[in-house]
Amino acid sequence: MMNQTPRRCNVFRLPTAHPADTSALSALIANGTVAAGSIRAILGKTEGNGCVNDFTRAYAVTALQAALAEPLGCSPAEVGQLIAMVMSGGTEGGLSPHLIVFTATNAPPDAVPAFSLAIGTASTRPFRPEEIGRTAQIEATAQAVTTAMRAAGIARPADVHYVQVKCPLLTSERAAEAASRGHPVVTADSYKSMGYSRGASALGVACALGEVGRDALDDGAICRRLDLWSGRASTSAGIELMHNEIIVLGNSDQWASDAVIGHRVMRDAIDLPAAVGALADVGLPTAGQLDDAARHRLLAVLAKADPSTSGSIRGARHIMLDDSDINATRHARALVGGVLAGVMGRTDLFVSGGAEHQGPDGGGPIAVIAQRSAPHAK
Amino acid sequence: MMNQTPRRCNVFRLPTAHPADTSALSALIANGTVAAGSIRAILGKTEGNGCVNDFTRAYAVTALQAALAEPLGCSPAEVGQLIAMVMSGGTEGGLSPHLIVFTATNAPPDAVPAFSLAIGTASTRPFRPEEIGRTAQIEATAQAVTTAMRAAGIARPADVHYVQVKCPLLTSERAAEAASRGHPVVTADSYKSMGYSRGASALGVACALGEVGRDALDDGAICRRLDLWSGRASTSAGIELMHNEIIVLGNSDQWASDAVIGHRVMRDAIDLPAAVGALADVGLPTAGQLDDAARHRLLAVLAKADPSTSGSIRGARHIMLDDSDINATRHARALVGGVLAGVMGRTDLFVSGGAEHQGPDGGGPIAVIAQRSAPHAK
Amino acid sequence: MMNQTPRRCNVFRLPTAHPADTSALSALIANGTVAAGSIRAILGKTEGNGCVNDFTRAYAVTALQAALAEPLGCSPAEVGQLIAMVMSGGTEGGLSPHLIVFTATNAPPDAVPAFSLAIGTASTRPFRPEEIGRTAQIEATAQAVTTAMRAAGIARPADVHYVQVKCPLLTSERAAEAASRGHPVVTADSYKSMGYSRGASALGVACALGEVGRDALDDGAICRRLDLWSGRASTSAGIELMHNEIIVLGNSDQWASDAVIGHRVMRDAIDLPAAVGALADVGLPTAGQLDDAARHRLLAVLAKADPSTSGSIRGARHIMLDDSDINATRHARALVGGVLAGVMGRTDLFVSGGAEHQGPDGGGPIAVIAQRSAPHAK
Amino acid sequence: MMNQTPRRCNVFRLPTAHPADTSALSALIANGTVAAGSIRAILGKTEGNGCVNDFTRAYAVTALQAALAEPLGCSPAEVGQLIAMVMSGGTEGGLSPHLIVFTATNAPPDAVPAFSLAIGTASTRPFRPEEIGRTAQIEATAQAVTTAMRAAGIARPADVHYVQVKCPLLTSERAAEAASRGHPVVTADSYKSMGYSRGASALGVACALGEVGRDALDDGAICRRLDLWSGRASTSAGIELMHNEIIVLGNSDQWASDAVIGHRVMRDAIDLPAAVGALADVGLPTAGQLDDAARHRLLAVLAKADPSTSGSIRGARHIMLDDSDINATRHARALVGGVLAGVMGRTDLFVSGGAEHQGPDGGGPIAVIAQRSAPHAK
Repeated sequence: MMNQTPRRCNVFRLPTAHPADTSALSALIANGTVAAGSIRAILGKTEGNGCVNDFTRAYAVTALQAALAEPLGCSPAEVGQLIAMVMSGGTEGGLSPHLIVFTATNAPPDAVPAFSLAIGTASTRPFRPEEIGRTAQIEATAQAVTTAMRAAGIARPADVHYVQVKCPLLTSERAAEAASRGHPVVTADSYKSMGYSRGASALGVACALGEVGRDALDDGAICRRLDLWSGRASTSAGIELMHNEIIVLGNSDQWASDAVIGHRVMRDAIDLPAAVGALADVGLPTAGQLDDAARHRLLAVLAKADPSTSGSIRGARHIMLDDSDINATRHARALVGGVLAGVMGRTDLFVSGGAEHQGPDGGGPIAVIAQRSAPHAK
Repeated sequence: MMNQTPRRCNVFRLPTAHPADTSALSALIANGTVAAGSIRAILGKTEGNGCVNDFTRAYAVTALQAALAEPLGCSPAEVGQLIAMVMSGGTEGGLSPHLIVFTATNAPPDAVPAFSLAIGTASTRPFRPEEIGRTAQIEATAQAVTTAMRAAGIARPADVHYVQVKCPLLTSERAAEAASRGHPVVTADSYKSMGYSRGASALGVACALGEVGRDALDDGAICRRLDLWSGRASTSAGIELMHNEIIVLGNSDQWASDAVIGHRVMRDAIDLPAAVGALADVGLPTAGQLDDAARHRLLAVLAKADPSTSGSIRGARHIMLDDSDINATRHARALVGGVLAGVMGRTDLFVSGGAEHQGPDGGGPIAVIAQRSAPHAK
Repeated sequence: MMNQTPRRCNVFRLPTAHPADTSALSALIANGTVAAGSIRAILGKTEGNGCVNDFTRAYAVTALQAALAEPLGCSPAEVGQLIAMVMSGGTEGGLSPHLIVFTATNAPPDAVPAFSLAIGTASTRPFRPEEIGRTAQIEATAQAVTTAMRAAGIARPADVHYVQVKCPLLTSERAAEAASRGHPVVTADSYKSMGYSRGASALGVACALGEVGRDALDDGAICRRLDLWSGRASTSAGIELMHNEIIVLGNSDQWASDAVIGHRVMRDAIDLPAAVGALADVGLPTAGQLDDAARHRLLAVLAKADPSTSGSIRGARHIMLDDSDINATRHARALVGGVLAGVMGRTDLFVSGGAEHQGPDGGGPIAVIAQRSAPHAK
Repeated sequence: MMNQTPRRCNVFRLPTAHPADTSALSALIANGTVAAGSIRAILGKTEGNGCVNDFTRAYAVTALQAALAEPLGCSPAEVGQLIAMVMSGGTEGGLSPHLIVFTATNAPPDAVPAFSLAIGTASTRPFRPEEIGRTAQIEATAQAVTTAMRAAGIARPADVHYVQVKCPLLTSERAAEAASRGHPVVTADSYKSMGYSRGASALGVACALGEVGRDALDDGAICRRLDLWSGRASTSAGIELMHNEIIVLGNSDQWASDAVIGHRVMRDAIDLPAAVGALADVGLPTAGQLDDAARHRLLAVLAKADPSTSGSIRGARHIMLDDSDINATRHARALVGGVLAGVMGRTDLFVSGGAEHQGPDGGGPIAVIAQRSAPHAK
């Protein structure tokens, strides 16, 4: 994709007072800071349980679609086709509910292209139920990641630092439909199908980025070969779609802004040095906690959290997997949220659960987006 | 208290496989590392909810008393009179259940007194129900802290770094008994009485250590004047006693070991620099996370956690106080546990909730005990 | 109110697949069974926790308003002014999420007036924050109940069997506004203010129906004199309004249908005979469980549930108030839902919590609506 | 087993103030009502979550063993070999924590044998890990049930009304040990192994009682053929044993008391008629709720509860299986507890979860023990 005029990707991190609170975004649109048509993606942390019966995610999407319909001049349902929205439930510990809005515009005429934040999106074809959680989903996802990289103007996989995937899940109706055609699905359990779909999608990202060789992968590897993973994938399953939506974030010299993205992989849930490394990569070195100036230059933190299946962290027992009162992923988000809040000095962090094939067992990718220089009036 | 032969305070941090697991302690007694009679105090993190119906605390105490009865040559009930035991429920996030055993022995004949870890214990008289959560409890606690300091050979309040208090609570029977004598109690609600008792006890510590002037305190200040607090108190309420038990930890030149204690006050739940400072105070400076050598020299971490009543952390909303599925103190422990695990590189941290008058609103004291030199065979 | 042409109140109980599921109602409108303009009130059980952070209630209202806007030819926000909607969160145990839609139409020309189900609605003036949870709210509610009775064509209080009230709560902003005018509010705690508002509203119903004498009531009685209560009030607090909305259900000879309503008061949570009595009152006597024919004639069951403050039921301890993992009201709804499901043979029951002054401590009103004769095509 | 002198089985239902409360039992022993040596079995409901991390069960057993050691003149550990103890966690809704103590003594010299309550116990051999959850466990359990019937003096399977089984579960250590010998276990997941062990044990009961033909059963049927079940089994898995312990309750003419047991099978969770039928079987007919006289003659209620895997009850959706905040079995116990409390007029009911092959999907057995005549001084 040849793009002579540089583009600019802006990032807006907006607090919410409740899951349906879109007031901060509406205010930015009203005062002209954000053109509704420039919005490419919205990631959000909502305060539900992040598990099966978390309706705060759909509620937030409903509210965002309602709020953006008029500015975009379309129906609420059509908003969903224009803007990728991924809501992650669960703000355990001190995590703060918020939205992260990504826009893409032409850079001002005098802007000089810089190696800076780039965004690209793509979708796969719709999957048949029996393809979900299997190699067909891996392959289609890998192709779509490549397409999204092209859309973002990113040529080298090394310049990709975060790939958000929204993927489908299986319902009993979908499983029955496949069975009626003689094709059994990977699992009849809706909850488990989310893990398979997230896992296959993450492996698709890993293939596209060269982190895992395609020939290492077959159906049996998905959700079993935990040693195969992407250090940049973040995948999330939802009932409302049958295809995969891809958002690629990286750095590219076809864009022009002072924002830049970097990432590292946390090898376990308390791998603070990985977070410190990611900050250093984007020009925010720290010994301890970011100072006030630095933390205001931090535009977004995107991380994955999951309990280690070993039942321990560096040899010490954790109780996440044995707690029948609080779901294990809730513990894990609270923990990783605390580790990151300590170094960042902020709690509005996008920490999400369900990390199959997204980083090593018990660990996960962490990406940070920062402004190279101190913020000023745009 | 003149003590010509230096004493030695040893600290043993022992993992548990479940709340009643005393096998690690029994093994140390069996192999002669610990003389049962030298045990002064046992602090423990158990994996219950840390709230009203957390029976893991009493279960752990029952198991410890049963395990120590034979070595001590007494009944299980008498063990409770010989050794102060404070169990704190709640290992949310990645916190790891464990026991911290404190022993006091004579130092070896060749030991040179050093300014090192010292322990002293004391008790108040039993309280009448109407005294709990009021100035009478403050005053008796302050006196007992002074007594425990003397027992520890600590003259200066500045050398005290951690004061654990176990204090009573009110039951409907206790409230009724007081009422029958014409003396209303501070609250008829058992759960609230725990807060008042913890708060008055913490203010007693603050008085003894000169952190708060006695004339600033009256009944009305307790649990209301949140600006008055101790930076070294950690108080815990239990149904099984009517007096306050005090454990003072500090440094004294009447003792001889290479262990030393320090503390700082976290001004909010994500005050990582306070933790870094406390580590530096005990000879473990770090930029990021303790390395393997340093984290093995860390003997214990003792911290308090509570949600800020403002509903936010550095301006960002938290949802702890509005979550009807997970108690607010459980969120707070998970958060502070994550912040501290990040820098310590360990998860076996004694993070407890219920921080009335123990540090500023939303923050709390953090104490660390470390070996000055690398561990070696004792 | 003279009403020569008899009216007809129809009741539609509709299952939902999730909190935003309005498909059953939309289908009834599409096939002409329900005229959108005839809908007077919608009660709903949603599957949230029914406590502070239950967003399923607002999500359901949002979905209903969106679904009804087009049929009513108005905006979603205006739907809220035309139709009273009260969503109750919490379907613990076996309770089944559902909507109950009440319509009022002119009866067919050949309809003979019968002493049958009648509905009337009314609103109070908006309250100032300092009036909430105090006698001003009682008085205005009592007046509005009288107005709604008139609208329903019900003259005698004895013919009123259920009064649903939606009432406001206090937020910190509202409390601050009142304080700025020199008027302290009843409590600064939002959660507690819900109880005071529900309690004052229920006492307003009790006054209007002659269940409690007005002179027995002053500010101090609210949420304290638990011996004063209405056996027909069901009140619910919400943040979105500052006035009280009233829905009165009873029987009147100005209406013409084969539906009829009755009620009893459960003296404790397991007072099955009260439910059996209410069923008998509406022509559904049973010894055990309603048979299939009878349970299909049951149109709606509306009950209140709350844990007894004594901590016991008929002398046996319950653990609802001591459980820090599951909110007490969730236990109570599950319990009362089970008691009622046993006799009704159905689980789509409107059992709601928060029963201040709505029946005796630990008990609550139960109302049932039934068809006198077996259902047939309407 | 010829038993010329009739025996007597007494049942004592004792409230507990907390999981370790044995005071009521100790009082009965102290005043001579119960001889410690006559205690055959103790069933208990404790107030934990009834799931993986419920330590109230072990805590209660620890307390009972400590309390009975002195009266029995043995060590606490030996008490566990003399008396079968089965603690069931979870008193959701209004269920009241309590103990049910079964004693067997010689009847008084003048006692006339009656067809009355009989108890018998037996154990299987220890299982190898790979036998758990498989046909070997079915067969050994069936044999032991037959042995326990003989011990109880019950010849006909139709006279058996309740069979409590305590069975082992798999841990990672046990699974590894089996694997090291080349024998894979049924599942490496501890939680799932509980279901397999309960299921195989229940099928063993079904075989012994002729409810299921032995030839219908192979390994593949366990936890899959939900149409195969016992209407009298209640099985519970625990980590502390490797064999199955069996308690058979029924009626026999070799015993002499006025207590009698009966049972029915609830076809779903709200099958009140089954409970009414079981009450009628033991001489307590009721139309509605037991009156005071009748409910005092009710000695024990023993029932199983589990959510229906269909996700609905009589066609109406339940949310038990989708709730990530409250475990499904907790909902189910609350529901069945409510249904039964309504008809019984009592809340101290032994309702336990985990009903694999114990009654039909979503339903379960209910047994009741009652005195034929009104209680009088024994």
